[in-house]
Amino acid sequence: MKVYMDYASGSNVDPRVIKEMLPFFNEHVGNPSSFHSEGFKALKAINKAREQIAALINSEPSEIIFTSSATEASNLAIIGGAIRYKNKGNRIVTTAIEHISTINICKELTKQNFEMFQCPVDSSGIIMLDKFEELVNEKTVITSVMVANGEIGTIQPVKEASEIAHKKGSYIHSDATAALGKMEIDVKDLNIDFLTLSSNDIYGPKGVGALYIKKGLRVRPIIIGGGQEQGLRSGTENTPGIVGFGAAAEIIKKDMFKETTRLEKIRDELIERITSTIPESYLSGHPLKRLSNNANIRFNYIEGEALILSLDQEGIQLGTGSACAAKTLEPSHCLLALGLKHEEAHGSLVFTLGKGNNNEQVDYIMAKLPAIVKKLRAMSPITPEELK
Amino acid sequence: MKVYMDYASGSNVDPRVIKEMLPFFNEHVGNPSSFHSEGFKALKAINKAREQIAALINSEPSEIIFTSSATEASNLAIIGGAIRYKNKGNRIVTTAIEHISTINICKELTKQNFEMFQCPVDSSGIIMLDKFEELVNEKTVITSVMVANGEIGTIQPVKEASEIAHKKGSYIHSDATAALGKMEIDVKDLNIDFLTLSSNDIYGPKGVGALYIKKGLRVRPIIIGGGQEQGLRSGTENTPGIVGFGAAAEIIKKDMFKETTRLEKIRDELIERITSTIPESYLSGHPLKRLSNNANIRFNYIEGEALILSLDQEGIQLGTGSACAAKTLEPSHCLLALGLKHEEAHGSLVFTLGKGNNNEQVDYIMAKLPAIVKKLRAMSPITPEELK
Repeated sequence: MKVYMDYASGSNVDPRVIKEMLPFFNEHVGNPSSFHSEGFKALKAINKAREQIAALINSEPSEIIFTSSATEASNLAIIGGAIRYKNKGNRIVTTAIEHISTINICKELTKQNFEMFQCPVDSSGIIMLDKFEELVNEKTVITSVMVANGEIGTIQPVKEASEIAHKKGSYIHSDATAALGKMEIDVKDLNIDFLTLSSNDIYGPKGVGALYIKKGLRVRPIIIGGGQEQGLRSGTENTPGIVGFGAAAEIIKKDMFKETTRLEKIRDELIERITSTIPESYLSGHPLKRLSNNANIRFNYIEGEALILSLDQEGIQLGTGSACAAKTLEPSHCLLALGLKHEEAHGSLVFTLGKGNNNEQVDYIMAKLPAIVKKLRAMSPITPEELK
Repeated sequence: MKVYMDYASGSNVDPRVIKEMLPFFNEHVGNPSSFHSEGFKALKAINKAREQIAALINSEPSEIIFTSSATEASNLAIIGGAIRYKNKGNRIVTTAIEHISTINICKELTKQNFEMFQCPVDSSGIIMLDKFEELVNEKTVITSVMVANGEIGTIQPVKEASEIAHKKGSYIHSDATAALGKMEIDVKDLNIDFLTLSSNDIYGPKGVGALYIKKGLRVRPIIIGGGQEQGLRSGTENTPGIVGFGAAAEIIKKDMFKETTRLEKIRDELIERITSTIPESYLSGHPLKRLSNNANIRFNYIEGEALILSLDQEGIQLGTGSACAAKTLEPSHCLLALGLKHEEAHGSLVFTLGKGNNNEQVDYIMAKLPAIVKKLRAMSPITPEELK
């Protein structure tokens, strides 16, 4: 059996999305800037996608700027926003559990005279709003608080963070990469200024993302050139990719409630069976305020890498920490931010579920995982005798 | 009949390329940074593409950095290179006929204490090497001279420019977007430091590009994040797009000679028949040192936009100037650089041929174009009586 539960790292494209994209690979190939009917067709298709994505987050279509990835969108918001509005101040406030890309983007700005502060989280991974309020002051130009964390699953109080940021005159950016399609996201309700969106996380193609920019706001562009996307993001538009992202947004808007309910049940069964069967296994992150498709489970006395490679040999593919940082084999900064020790943070599995998952796969995991954990613990010199 | 001769603006993806890409949309969906077999498969596929592209330009695979477009690649080279090596000086030298994206990238750097100079071209569009030698001095950090111009077709003396640049201690970047797959490009022979590559221009997918960076050189990244692509370009890799770009590179390496020979004949027939049939119609750019698939033809006493829209109604799709700037309806900066007057530069058609073109389409163009030119000239108050 094959069990792929690493959807937060990479997802298949919905077959209905591929069907929408294909004509833009081999039939409607015009450049949306071209001054003829093939160009106009491409332009129309891109604007339709803009409407589909806007509908998913309750924005205006003109507030959506297409990029090549969520990472690029966050660069555009945080670096582009901080530099555009640097007259407001040089302070940036983010959190201790942001995606590594957001943290590195903020760090980059510290080379350009900005100061960066990371708001701590409690042991369930939720940012401490009182600390956030202390950190955000009148010199704060932009804050960045993710909608939900794709690794530990915790959903953040973005609306409250937005109120605090705006009260101090700061803009607020939020990374919705992990949350999009897993929960309602309404930019008007959240009162957010910039929102990072990812296509592949909602079964759209890789290589596409978008940034929501609230009407009236501007950013300094990151990619300079022909002036596409309202002058904010140059480069010939990736029409098939954008069309796919739009189609994926329309589909997930319809499917979301049913699918998240389905996955949540499978996920809950997985958590319950693992933590009740395997001694010293614990759920990380908040038990309730978490993404419906996420389970992050920690096993004491084990190295995560050995665990993940052993599971892979049985056809079970999972994440360890953020996929982007996985190769470094460093313990996850998110788990450390929860207050876990280095050795505790090392033995975690990140299950992120998606359309291909079902209850039989949980049975399969339960047929393999306990024995693998036992075997690896038996090999470890630090395992207590009763666990070997 | 449908005649699409705007390949420089947007091209179909080769069916063999689509076939290679599809499994990475719905089957091999892992993140190349993931620590399991699906991740390793994606990583392997990306590295294969790196080899395929390296083989096309005679570089090492490790010298290829994937980006989301040629524009992004040029940003990375010029902005990333100028800032990385700013200790060398603050002078940037490019040409008067670079793509608008390159010109705007260089302009952006003038906001950061760099000075920008544009080398003039002769009336055939070839840069004046003596002027180039005067402009490049010891304070020059980077120069940018394109391999060939996609609008007027002229092939530039990049090897000579490279010698001049290196003699003065400057790095040289070249934009190969229009030239790739239309002529041999050997980075070792050209002795180039940075080379911008585009996927869609060789029948690969849109939304992918690459930058060749000569071994040992570095750039400051433009997109910050998880540290993909040797830390030079962050963001989850667009695996299907990259696989497609690689497949396209391998195919065009085999097909290039035969296909460019075929297209050159069609293109030459087109030029000959148009300029001999329609009075006051002229080829812009160099008659011989030009891309095999390009014809840029100027018609006096006509507005290019009226011409292109009339042709579109007959199913003939062409370019006017650079697609990226087409929407501005400004006369092309390339044509003005040749010494043409504003009113002369306005009435041009850009034919860029590709796989879907054949001789019958030339017959069809000749059945429509002369009458349209005549009709439009008859409506214009500035046409001499004998042309009406």
